[in-house]
Amino acid sequence: MPTINLAIAGIGNNIAALLQGVYLYREQYTANKSETLPGIKRFAIGPYRVFDLNFVAAFDVNVNKIGKPLNEAIFISPNNYPHLAVTVPLQVPVSAGPVLDGLSAPLIERCHPHSLSITAEQVTHELVRSKADILLYSLPTGAPLAAEFYARCALNAGVGFVNCTPEKIARNLPLLEEFKKKHLPLIGDDLASHMGSSIVHRTLLQLFADRGITLKNSYQLNLGGNTDFRNLQQRGQSKMDTKKSALSSPNLDTSKVEVIPSAGFISSLEDTKVGIMHFEGLGWGGTPVHLDVTLKVQDSSNAAGIIIDLIRIAAVAKDKKIGGFIEGADYLLKSSPSENCERSLNALDSLVESFV
Amino acid sequence: MPTINLAIAGIGNNIAALLQGVYLYREQYTANKSETLPGIKRFAIGPYRVFDLNFVAAFDVNVNKIGKPLNEAIFISPNNYPHLAVTVPLQVPVSAGPVLDGLSAPLIERCHPHSLSITAEQVTHELVRSKADILLYSLPTGAPLAAEFYARCALNAGVGFVNCTPEKIARNLPLLEEFKKKHLPLIGDDLASHMGSSIVHRTLLQLFADRGITLKNSYQLNLGGNTDFRNLQQRGQSKMDTKKSALSSPNLDTSKVEVIPSAGFISSLEDTKVGIMHFEGLGWGGTPVHLDVTLKVQDSSNAAGIIIDLIRIAAVAKDKKIGGFIEGADYLLKSSPSENCERSLNALDSLVESFV
Amino acid sequence: MPTINLAIAGIGNNIAALLQGVYLYREQYTANKSETLPGIKRFAIGPYRVFDLNFVAAFDVNVNKIGKPLNEAIFISPNNYPHLAVTVPLQVPVSAGPVLDGLSAPLIERCHPHSLSITAEQVTHELVRSKADILLYSLPTGAPLAAEFYARCALNAGVGFVNCTPEKIARNLPLLEEFKKKHLPLIGDDLASHMGSSIVHRTLLQLFADRGITLKNSYQLNLGGNTDFRNLQQRGQSKMDTKKSALSSPNLDTSKVEVIPSAGFISSLEDTKVGIMHFEGLGWGGTPVHLDVTLKVQDSSNAAGIIIDLIRIAAVAKDKKIGGFIEGADYLLKSSPSENCERSLNALDSLVESFV
Amino acid sequence: MPTINLAIAGIGNNIAALLQGVYLYREQYTANKSETLPGIKRFAIGPYRVFDLNFVAAFDVNVNKIGKPLNEAIFISPNNYPHLAVTVPLQVPVSAGPVLDGLSAPLIERCHPHSLSITAEQVTHELVRSKADILLYSLPTGAPLAAEFYARCALNAGVGFVNCTPEKIARNLPLLEEFKKKHLPLIGDDLASHMGSSIVHRTLLQLFADRGITLKNSYQLNLGGNTDFRNLQQRGQSKMDTKKSALSSPNLDTSKVEVIPSAGFISSLEDTKVGIMHFEGLGWGGTPVHLDVTLKVQDSSNAAGIIIDLIRIAAVAKDKKIGGFIEGADYLLKSSPSENCERSLNALDSLVESFV
Repeated sequence: MPTINLAIAGIGNNIAALLQGVYLYREQYTANKSETLPGIKRFAIGPYRVFDLNFVAAFDVNVNKIGKPLNEAIFISPNNYPHLAVTVPLQVPVSAGPVLDGLSAPLIERCHPHSLSITAEQVTHELVRSKADILLYSLPTGAPLAAEFYARCALNAGVGFVNCTPEKIARNLPLLEEFKKKHLPLIGDDLASHMGSSIVHRTLLQLFADRGITLKNSYQLNLGGNTDFRNLQQRGQSKMDTKKSALSSPNLDTSKVEVIPSAGFISSLEDTKVGIMHFEGLGWGGTPVHLDVTLKVQDSSNAAGIIIDLIRIAAVAKDKKIGGFIEGADYLLKSSPSENCERSLNALDSLVESFV
Repeated sequence: MPTINLAIAGIGNNIAALLQGVYLYREQYTANKSETLPGIKRFAIGPYRVFDLNFVAAFDVNVNKIGKPLNEAIFISPNNYPHLAVTVPLQVPVSAGPVLDGLSAPLIERCHPHSLSITAEQVTHELVRSKADILLYSLPTGAPLAAEFYARCALNAGVGFVNCTPEKIARNLPLLEEFKKKHLPLIGDDLASHMGSSIVHRTLLQLFADRGITLKNSYQLNLGGNTDFRNLQQRGQSKMDTKKSALSSPNLDTSKVEVIPSAGFISSLEDTKVGIMHFEGLGWGGTPVHLDVTLKVQDSSNAAGIIIDLIRIAAVAKDKKIGGFIEGADYLLKSSPSENCERSLNALDSLVESFV
Repeated sequence: MPTINLAIAGIGNNIAALLQGVYLYREQYTANKSETLPGIKRFAIGPYRVFDLNFVAAFDVNVNKIGKPLNEAIFISPNNYPHLAVTVPLQVPVSAGPVLDGLSAPLIERCHPHSLSITAEQVTHELVRSKADILLYSLPTGAPLAAEFYARCALNAGVGFVNCTPEKIARNLPLLEEFKKKHLPLIGDDLASHMGSSIVHRTLLQLFADRGITLKNSYQLNLGGNTDFRNLQQRGQSKMDTKKSALSSPNLDTSKVEVIPSAGFISSLEDTKVGIMHFEGLGWGGTPVHLDVTLKVQDSSNAAGIIIDLIRIAAVAKDKKIGGFIEGADYLLKSSPSENCERSLNALDSLVESFV
Repeated sequence: MPTINLAIAGIGNNIAALLQGVYLYREQYTANKSETLPGIKRFAIGPYRVFDLNFVAAFDVNVNKIGKPLNEAIFISPNNYPHLAVTVPLQVPVSAGPVLDGLSAPLIERCHPHSLSITAEQVTHELVRSKADILLYSLPTGAPLAAEFYARCALNAGVGFVNCTPEKIARNLPLLEEFKKKHLPLIGDDLASHMGSSIVHRTLLQLFADRGITLKNSYQLNLGGNTDFRNLQQRGQSKMDTKKSALSSPNLDTSKVEVIPSAGFISSLEDTKVGIMHFEGLGWGGTPVHLDVTLKVQDSSNAAGIIIDLIRIAAVAKDKKIGGFIEGADYLLKSSPSENCERSLNALDSLVESFV
């Protein structure tokens, strides 16, 4: 069976989820031969089953992670994704990546000294040497230079690129054009959640509109205990805007909706995320309609469940020598270079069917 | 402006909601001239605005309601819909309807003595005399003979018929054929809720399926304090099946969903209905996704918000001499005679547009 | 160290919780030597640590359980308590108990044939032979004859008795007198929950009263998926009264509280119990105070956490030759023979201190 | 009947609640002669019924409020307490108070010009002239100089003082001594809520401890839409400490509790406050106990329900010439000068009884 050689930049909780999940599903499939796997909608995309991934290269700047095999590095603090019930065999060691933006001074001190002198040539060379098909970019939000650095290394190494973060990479149109010319896929930016507050909130706001219940007001707030949440509290307003745009839809008025992306860092939640939503509407005769919703998910599983499809879409596109952004992947992303991003499930289904 | 002459059989909470709402909206529109009214999606259907209704005849068997003007009868026990902030002027008095099925012995004793001798001729005559356009059938569930009695009176009087209950009237195909021949609309059976547990539950089950979250289990339970709820506790299993069918959709597996239509009669809730839903799913790596939802609505407003559209659709159809069931109204009903009832919002929107 | 020899009548989920918990705590204590154990308030009562129990005899009527070692029988259907992370070594086999009341015809057919001819002599003999100190009575509710049968066997065998069910045993005053004469403890009736809906509801109703918030209305409903819940739905009214009495307290008016002991049997909940409580109050100026509470517990752990203290209190009393009911145990029971059952934590604390 | 002459510094939502409530209760009592009033635990304290208040003087710095009669000023923005169903007759006009600390530059600009030159002599004179018995200090938190200013004016005017805010006034021991010498009561600091997150959280943490459920973790977060909430977001850490101390109790370990005093300013909540609490515990065998609580209250009613008792306690003390802090009032306060503040309901009940 064909497999995808995957390189990774940024070894956080998302990768802890992705790596363990791949081995868990492989084990379950080997045992039961059933293509029905928990949390998996698309067993195969093109020729690639959900576990047809090889982890061939990994980059990070954390001095504690560098040099460690990937299966060990994914559990090193501040990572706090749970151990799933699977043993992951020895994996490629984590290499030092470059220190660019996105790190405050105290964090830079904790970087591996090698990181301070890593060059694009070195990263590109490692991508070529490891025979990577796709580079998954998964650093913490807020490092646009690092994101572009890795994207250009991928471009030079002839490797497809998937951007999990809000940095503008697929929406960097000249860069996108270069990927297109080299027949390499460039997919981004920013993951939709597999099942997150935004999609639940948007779905229910749409239901109010469809049924003709007048929205009086609504709010959403989110709690978590991973580093993403600690960071979010400091980036309040910008994330609030992103979250509100994630609610918007052609026929939805979100002027009465208030969103608090990180209402609180609750350490005991660890990598669990709690989304609380409240809706007040007016029904017939102006009588009240109240809806209260609480969503509780494993935050990084929410990312991995999307990443697994984006990587496979990118790999099929690379096989077929389709470069640039892959239309139809929008449904899995928060932003995309598409003119009129519709986030349509139908478009995604059509894309996946065209790969068979 | 044209208005619809409406006759009503069964003066319960639904009619308390409908009558007050119509006067409230008329008052609001007169004051503000705004077509944006709380809880109203379609200001007009055909020529009929949301308040273009005349209540011309009313039937019931309750000795306390008969003879009272409709605006007074709607507040007589066991009705417990709230008083809205509007004064409803004097209305037609409630006439005695016939005692048929659906009444237990103690209830029959509370009936008006006239009710025991009411004939179809008398009801038909009253419909003709009052120049009713549409007869709205809204008795408590469980009286199939009464439902057919009123439908045949409407047929003989040349009046359209809307069935709010689960009795098989629109699905009685020979009867439907007779309405069709006389170019009279017959719309039923059983109202969808404007915003009820079924639609919220179905929407979120669909979301799980769309996102690829494996449903592990889900339950729904409902609490209320009106007579409907007291009755429901005794009709457990049959209503459980209806509720589960209300969740079904072509691509939804509801085998893991448990529904308790009436988990409890809580008198203090009065006409308020509380729906509690719980969802457990499996995301990436089999990690858990938990969703908890509580919906709180005015039960009878939920009915009136649908009734207002069904009456107007029936009235336009009668004006256009379209008989039988009106395709596209399925979205507003729990069951319908349509071969493949799709409950499609698009079909309803098209129908309403065709009326302009 | 001294240990308590325990005999058990009725091998349901409670015993699955009790047996596994005892071995789990022994293992944890052996490993860490810490007297702080999860869910345990009293590491020792008198000389008995939480795990100083020997299971020496067991009775049941279920043909599938009889003859099986106790550690296996606790997992046989309809039991559905989870497997805890501990291996329980081989235990005494389950003996046939007598078939008396409390069984419907189809259940009697599933009984072991031996059960139909078991005599009091045989059970008494087994209690003596096994050197039991205490007999724990834990059959399903609704078998008063069986409860008295086992109590008299204990009396004759010189064994203390703990009644986990609502049958009137400790409140059977002549029987209580006989235990007192023989210096044997008789503790009952009906377990309070370790942390259940009643105690949470009562605590919060008390808080409303203490703070001077006028209670407008309140309701409580409970969901579960074990046999207890299936039975409860059929014993609605009587259990509703018990539950309301469990809420009462000298200065609490519960006239505005509605309780639904089993709002629904939700099979997917298995041995988990969900309690939902709602409170509406009026604060200053009549402005609203709303409180919503959801409690989720392992139902049979809630029993075992109380049983462990009752057994140890009974064992110390037996050692000290204190017969009859043990004042101070009321806090752990729903009903008791005490004149003015106060369910006082202070009285329990004093009792336990007196045992040191 | 005797009445209390009340002067007020700071005309916010609390005063909107207090003033309207007093008139509402007077109206209800006049109509029904019933001493059972919604939200009122103590109809009378000493000779003073709940409505035996005269509002004789009022101070503020807001240019829009100064000069307006008090019954009008309580509704001026940013106040957003609701209008209760009562008409409050004309009241004393609001006087200009001094601008001291607690105001940022833009707010100072909005102050009344007179405020910049108000002296202690003027305020003292107004207290004397108006024959005030008690001065209620209710400015926004964060103005220790203003608090002391008003306390000294009260002292000089021979008026009792109640401090609703966290400023250290009753805990300022030299100042307390001066009040004591002049036989004037000084009660503070900071109001407990009539029914707030702290008391509900503490009560349930205590229940976990009482029952022997091991607390694994717990969190509390609060949402609101009044100015208090907007301010709180900026004073995160200090308020977090206060809130945690409000949870503490001699035998409660709060090390596993996380509190977010203001998780979010949600404008649509206005003066409503939502408290969300989550508890995870370990019961028997380490099996989980989950408790979720949502409290929804009118924030300023929560204050007024406490203020009404503090004012009456102060008035009785003044009548009896008892000076300084009044032991037993601790139950109604967050902090107090008492050595071992126990916040005991019994102590409060004894105090009130001693006043009869």
